[in-house]
Amino acid sequence: MSEQDPLWQAFKQTSYQASGHGKRNMQVLKDAFADIDGSLASDGYGTGKVIEDFQEKIAKFLGKETAVFFPSGTMAQQIALRIWCDEKGLKKVAYHPLCHLELHEEDGLKELHHIEPVLLADETRVIELEDVVGLEEEIACLLLELPQREIGGQLPDYETIVSISSYCREKGIKLHLDGARLFEIIPYYQKSAVEICELFDSVYVSFYKGIGGIAGAILAGDKEFTEQSKVWKRRHGGDLISLYPYIVSSDYYFDKRVSKMEQYYEEAKQLAALFNQCHSVKTMPVVPVSNMFHVHFDVGKEELEPILIEIYKETGVGLTSYLRETSESACSYEVSIGDQYEQVPKVRLETVFELLNEKLSTR
Amino acid sequence: MSEQDPLWQAFKQTSYQASGHGKRNMQVLKDAFADIDGSLASDGYGTGKVIEDFQEKIAKFLGKETAVFFPSGTMAQQIALRIWCDEKGLKKVAYHPLCHLELHEEDGLKELHHIEPVLLADETRVIELEDVVGLEEEIACLLLELPQREIGGQLPDYETIVSISSYCREKGIKLHLDGARLFEIIPYYQKSAVEICELFDSVYVSFYKGIGGIAGAILAGDKEFTEQSKVWKRRHGGDLISLYPYIVSSDYYFDKRVSKMEQYYEEAKQLAALFNQCHSVKTMPVVPVSNMFHVHFDVGKEELEPILIEIYKETGVGLTSYLRETSESACSYEVSIGDQYEQVPKVRLETVFELLNEKLSTR
Repeated sequence: MSEQDPLWQAFKQTSYQASGHGKRNMQVLKDAFADIDGSLASDGYGTGKVIEDFQEKIAKFLGKETAVFFPSGTMAQQIALRIWCDEKGLKKVAYHPLCHLELHEEDGLKELHHIEPVLLADETRVIELEDVVGLEEEIACLLLELPQREIGGQLPDYETIVSISSYCREKGIKLHLDGARLFEIIPYYQKSAVEICELFDSVYVSFYKGIGGIAGAILAGDKEFTEQSKVWKRRHGGDLISLYPYIVSSDYYFDKRVSKMEQYYEEAKQLAALFNQCHSVKTMPVVPVSNMFHVHFDVGKEELEPILIEIYKETGVGLTSYLRETSESACSYEVSIGDQYEQVPKVRLETVFELLNEKLSTR
Repeated sequence: MSEQDPLWQAFKQTSYQASGHGKRNMQVLKDAFADIDGSLASDGYGTGKVIEDFQEKIAKFLGKETAVFFPSGTMAQQIALRIWCDEKGLKKVAYHPLCHLELHEEDGLKELHHIEPVLLADETRVIELEDVVGLEEEIACLLLELPQREIGGQLPDYETIVSISSYCREKGIKLHLDGARLFEIIPYYQKSAVEICELFDSVYVSFYKGIGGIAGAILAGDKEFTEQSKVWKRRHGGDLISLYPYIVSSDYYFDKRVSKMEQYYEEAKQLAALFNQCHSVKTMPVVPVSNMFHVHFDVGKEELEPILIEIYKETGVGLTSYLRETSESACSYEVSIGDQYEQVPKVRLETVFELLNEKLSTR
C-alpha cells in the first residue's frame, strides 16, 4: 500500500471506489468541527461536558450503566481484561486465535498485564458454545469479537451468544465484547445494541471503522468496572488533558452513519454476490453478515494486479488499493462498505464485473 | 476549580488574565487547522508525512537522531524508563519525590512495568550531584525533570547537569530528561535545546504546556531506542490510526510560541517581583528561571478568596482561578506565563498589586 505501488496509484486515480467512506484526510476533522462553536470548552483529564455527554449517550445506546472514552481500542480492551482478571485473581482469559490482542498489539496484554490467553476455535470459524464448555482451564474472562474480522467478519448465531452468555454467568466467567464493528452487525441480528450488549459484562466499540471517525473508542459496563478503567486509562497514558478532537468527530460521524448500517449491509451482500458470480473469485463469508467481507481470488497477486489496474482505468471504478498474497496462486483483500459504494453508478459497476469475469475466465 | 466556585467565576469574568495562553476551548483546534488543506493525508499508525516530518523537525531541534510522537508524556516516559531498565536487566530507576510518575500517573510505572523508583532529594530542592553519587542502590536510569514543576519550577545549575551526566555515563546509568517544560528553560540556561539534550540519553517534551497545543508529546533519542519505543507505544494503546489532530496543532503552536519563551521568562520575573513586593506573599522561586513559578500566600484560602474576587472586579484583571490550601493559614497557586500576560495593561496591573498589598497589609 505504498505510494510507489501501481495498484495503489491506479486506485487513487479512480473516480469511484466501491469500499470505505473515502480518504482518511484532514477534511474528516474539518467537516466534524465546521459547525462547532470555538468557545466550547475542552474536556480536561476525562471530565467536562464534551466527554461526559458523549459517554452518557453511548452508554445509553449500548444499554450499559456507564461508559468511558478511550483513545484506542487496544488500550480499552487490555484494561477490560485486566480488571476482570484482577477481580477473579486469575490472569487467564480466552479468545479467538485471530483476536486483535493476539495479532496487532505487540503482545501488550502479556507484556504489560502478564495475562495468559487460551485460544478457542480456529482460523476457519468463530467460537461456538462447545469451545467454551470444552475449556479445560479456568479463565477469568472470555472475549468474543463480533464480527470476527480476520475471517471476513463472520458471526455466530444470536442464540449461540445467548447460550455462551448464560454458560459464562453460571460459571463465573466474565464475557467481554470486542465490538469494534458492533454497529455494523445490528442489521443482521435484527436486535438492538442493547439486546446484544446485555449478554456481555463489558463492551468495547470503535468510532473509526463503520462510523468513520478519526480515532477513539468507548468501553462500557457497570460503574464499578468503568471507574476502575479510568484508573488504568491514566496508568496507560490515555487520560489525556484533551480528547475532544476524537470525541467531537466520533459524535459527528456516529450521528451521521449509525443509521446507515442497514444500507451498508445490503450493499455488502449485493457486492459480494457480484464477486461470487465471477470466475476464480469467492467471498468470505459467501453472504456477508455485516458491511464487511473478504474477497479471495484463486489468482496470484502478480497476475491479478495488472488486470485490476486495467479495469480501474477503463471504468473509473476502484475495487481495492491493495492485494494480500495468501499463496503463490491466491490473494485476497478486505471490503468494508461505507459511504462510497452508493456513489458508484450501477452501470459502471456492472461493467467492472463483466470485465473482471471475462479477464479471469480467459487467462 | 468547579463552575460553582466564586473565585473561578470571578476569574472567568475578568477582561485580562495574567497567566496562561487563554481558554482551552475548541478554538485552539480550529485556529490550528484553519489554514490546513483538507486533502492532506492522515498519518496511519505512526507512518506518513505529517507524523514523520514533525518527528524529524523536533528531533533536529533537540539534537537527537530520531523522535517519536506520543499521545501523552505519561506514556512516553514510562516507556523510556522501561527500555532503559530492560537494556540493563534491572528494574530500578531514580527520580525526585515530586516526579510526575510518582504523583500523577496512578503508579503506572509500578503497576504496568514493575519498575521500582528510588527517590532522590526532597520536597524543598532539586536533585544535585551529591544525591546521585550518594545512591546506595544500583539503578538503570536517572530521570531529571527540568524545571522541577511541583516546587515552582526550580532548576539546578547547568554545570550540575553536566557533572551528573558525566557521572551517569561513567557509571553506566542512563539519563532521561523529563522536559515537559524544556522549551521554557532555554532562555535561563542560555543554551540551545541541543546543548541541554546532549547531556541526556532520552528526552521527552510536551506540546501543551508552554507551547499551548491540545495534547501530545515527543520522545527523542537514538534510533535503536526510539524503534523500541514504537513497539511499546503500540502495547500501551498509543499507536493510534490517526494522531494528526495533536500533531498538526503541536506543530502550529510550536512555530507560534517557541520563540516567545524568552519573553515569557522576562514577564515571569516581572510578575514575580510584583508579588514579592506585597505583604504576606512570596514566590517560589523568588526569581523565576522559566515562565513558571508558584505564589505562596501567608493567608488562609477562605480569607484570600474574597480579597482576590474584589480585586478582579475592581480592575478587570484575573490572577488565578483557584487557590490550593497548603495549611489553615496559607495557600498557593501556580503561574505559567503565556500569551495573555502581554495583553494586561500595565496600569491595571499596578493597581492590582497596590490593592493586593493594601488589603493584605491592613487585614
